[in-house]
Amino acid sequence: MSNAKSSLKIAIAGLGVVGAEVARQVINRGDELSEAAGTPIEIVAVSAREPLLDRGVNLDGIDWYDEAPKLAERDDIDIVVEMIGGSEGVALDLARAALGSCKHVITANKAMIAHHGAELAQLAETNDVHLLFESAVAGGIPAVKSLREGLAGNRITRVAGILNGTCNYILSTMETTGRDFEEVLAEAQRLGYAEAEPSFDVDGIDAAHKLTILAAIAFGHKPDFKAVSIQGIRDVSSVDFAYANQLGFRIKLVGVAEPGLVPRMQTCLLPLASQLAKVSGVLNAVEYHGEPVGSVLAVGPGAGGGATSSAVLSDLIDIATGRGGLPFGRSINTLLDASVIENFAGPDKPFYVRLMVVDQPGVLATLTGILKKYSISIEGLLQQGRAPGNAVALVMTTHETSVANLGIALDEMEKLPIVKAKPVAMPIMLADRET
Amino acid sequence: MSNAKSSLKIAIAGLGVVGAEVARQVINRGDELSEAAGTPIEIVAVSAREPLLDRGVNLDGIDWYDEAPKLAERDDIDIVVEMIGGSEGVALDLARAALGSCKHVITANKAMIAHHGAELAQLAETNDVHLLFESAVAGGIPAVKSLREGLAGNRITRVAGILNGTCNYILSTMETTGRDFEEVLAEAQRLGYAEAEPSFDVDGIDAAHKLTILAAIAFGHKPDFKAVSIQGIRDVSSVDFAYANQLGFRIKLVGVAEPGLVPRMQTCLLPLASQLAKVSGVLNAVEYHGEPVGSVLAVGPGAGGGATSSAVLSDLIDIATGRGGLPFGRSINTLLDASVIENFAGPDKPFYVRLMVVDQPGVLATLTGILKKYSISIEGLLQQGRAPGNAVALVMTTHETSVANLGIALDEMEKLPIVKAKPVAMPIMLADRET
Repeated sequence: MSNAKSSLKIAIAGLGVVGAEVARQVINRGDELSEAAGTPIEIVAVSAREPLLDRGVNLDGIDWYDEAPKLAERDDIDIVVEMIGGSEGVALDLARAALGSCKHVITANKAMIAHHGAELAQLAETNDVHLLFESAVAGGIPAVKSLREGLAGNRITRVAGILNGTCNYILSTMETTGRDFEEVLAEAQRLGYAEAEPSFDVDGIDAAHKLTILAAIAFGHKPDFKAVSIQGIRDVSSVDFAYANQLGFRIKLVGVAEPGLVPRMQTCLLPLASQLAKVSGVLNAVEYHGEPVGSVLAVGPGAGGGATSSAVLSDLIDIATGRGGLPFGRSINTLLDASVIENFAGPDKPFYVRLMVVDQPGVLATLTGILKKYSISIEGLLQQGRAPGNAVALVMTTHETSVANLGIALDEMEKLPIVKAKPVAMPIMLADRET
Repeated sequence: MSNAKSSLKIAIAGLGVVGAEVARQVINRGDELSEAAGTPIEIVAVSAREPLLDRGVNLDGIDWYDEAPKLAERDDIDIVVEMIGGSEGVALDLARAALGSCKHVITANKAMIAHHGAELAQLAETNDVHLLFESAVAGGIPAVKSLREGLAGNRITRVAGILNGTCNYILSTMETTGRDFEEVLAEAQRLGYAEAEPSFDVDGIDAAHKLTILAAIAFGHKPDFKAVSIQGIRDVSSVDFAYANQLGFRIKLVGVAEPGLVPRMQTCLLPLASQLAKVSGVLNAVEYHGEPVGSVLAVGPGAGGGATSSAVLSDLIDIATGRGGLPFGRSINTLLDASVIENFAGPDKPFYVRLMVVDQPGVLATLTGILKKYSISIEGLLQQGRAPGNAVALVMTTHETSVANLGIALDEMEKLPIVKAKPVAMPIMLADRET
């Protein structure tokens, strides 16, 4: 019932914020963790740059390797904890070598799993070892385990999540302060919530890595990052928050995966009363919809050494207690190719549209004429302030609309002299359960 | 890596709402579930009263037993799914017999696990079979798995939950409609949210069963229902919701377990902005606090055939895929006796107090004199309306107060002729994280 051994020997590759916290936890809380694991856990080797850096933990007596892949060559190591990061390069070399030499691998590397998860899961299965990545998705929330195991008996109909705390912090702050994206981003960088190179976060790439993993588990296909549609938060203006609010919505970056559709990271409007709309600041949240369960929401810290190391430790204990299982919950040979997903934008949906138009007679008639031509029906309209001859915001919400038609209509509008800026359009996500 | 067999044969005992739904899922979604389990799942026997009742599923060809414990005598059954309920009697007889004859047991029976979980876990461990009860706590939320596995690497500092949808529905409805307990209870009974005999729900017993199980997993001790302090929702009056709201709080029945303290079901005040305060209606929620994770919240349907059968199916798939593990996450021999918990009310805490007092000069001086005598410090005071010579409500919140002292002070007040009803006191739970 358990493959527990007399002692579990681990190696940690990468001693950044998370790697160092895992080392601290294993060393400082050794007795507790050994009790939970049913076996002593021992760090026998680490690999990182800068051996002399103070990481708040005593690593004396632990073997040090400059080159991480060398860890795979040691016969006494049971588990390699890969905390280096990056989809390619050293992290991937190490993961391949470790699994290939029959070592379990625990990784927080969402990029690597999103890009190479299928290959690595195959390698793990072939060598009868575990590949676990709870820490790769939504930090301290047991998001992978909840979906792969806790809801395993369901036909999943949707997974929706706030998967990037940096973006959620920026959007929450823009909303509450009325400040613009660039200003709030700069503040987030000062506070350490955003990287100096913010693109991975604000362009939705990091969240899309996580969504790729959740979609693969939810729908039984191989993770395929290329198949995900990605939109970030750069195009949202501070004025959109106020308009959205007046219409009863909040703007969030949400990852959505549904069966048969391209998983998508989208900056969208959620009803103020919906559960995901209430998740503010750096928190992450994942909402699972399925049959027969209905829907379940989990909210928690999505990043940071504490939250992420909690997930790493749970993987460690799962392996120690024989609960490791298969990386995606089922044999890699039964996973579908992600390419079977129909590559289209999904069913019609309502949209929020903001146009900057010249305040002059006849503008509305021109624009509604175009909408009519493409069978786009207006649900609500908001026009505030007057500035005759100058640009004013015209905000509308549509009924359920063909995404393709809307795109064509907006392109046509953008070319008109009365339209003064690129139109902003965001989908409205209505089916989110309200509490 | 898996103890999967060529086919997994199950028996279902009890075909009420949940048992029948499990049967429907296994029969109607056989291919999907077999794929998730990695092996075909087959119902070979059932036990229930009234064989002729239409349960919306074709049970032809499945052996029928009038006496559930007989299921344990069949050699071909791998898993017994116990859906009978009740802490003693047939359910317990069946669980003992099934585990004793080396069959895995899956149960939704919170009362049985709260009362006899230690004995049954011992039996399971001795016979090297699984005893799983995800469906016993918080319905469709993977609450047991999240705590036992997903957060296994943490030192849990608190588990707090809304664990009874009936009570939460009644409290939410009392708050929004201003109606009284008895009236709302009657409505809940008509709607099927409350039983004809409501005591198990409204007196906090059902929720306390679930709290017993969560506390045992969180703190590594044997489940011991007798050690839980239980208070229900009968004493809350509709006026308390309005007063609480004016003071920035909402009234909820919350189960709280903290290390070294008696787990308690308490009707208490939560800050309006706190996560648990936002969980309304029949939903359940569990909030886990731990180191290093911080805190994680899960919200979902706490009852009903769909949600509960989802949890049963996940247990089934866990067993099929070799992830069953130990019932409480660690060997029964390492679990502490619950009696090591110090049996006291816990640290000082703030309270909400409502007194019905005669509206006459000097009342406040008399009452505050008593509070001063017992070192109880007032934080806020609310007195509305005037009714000279008649009873009016005097509402106060205290600073952190000794629970024992408050009890003595309230007893003394109750004996005064100026106090016209039994004082109402509820703790204020402040440490709940706000979102």
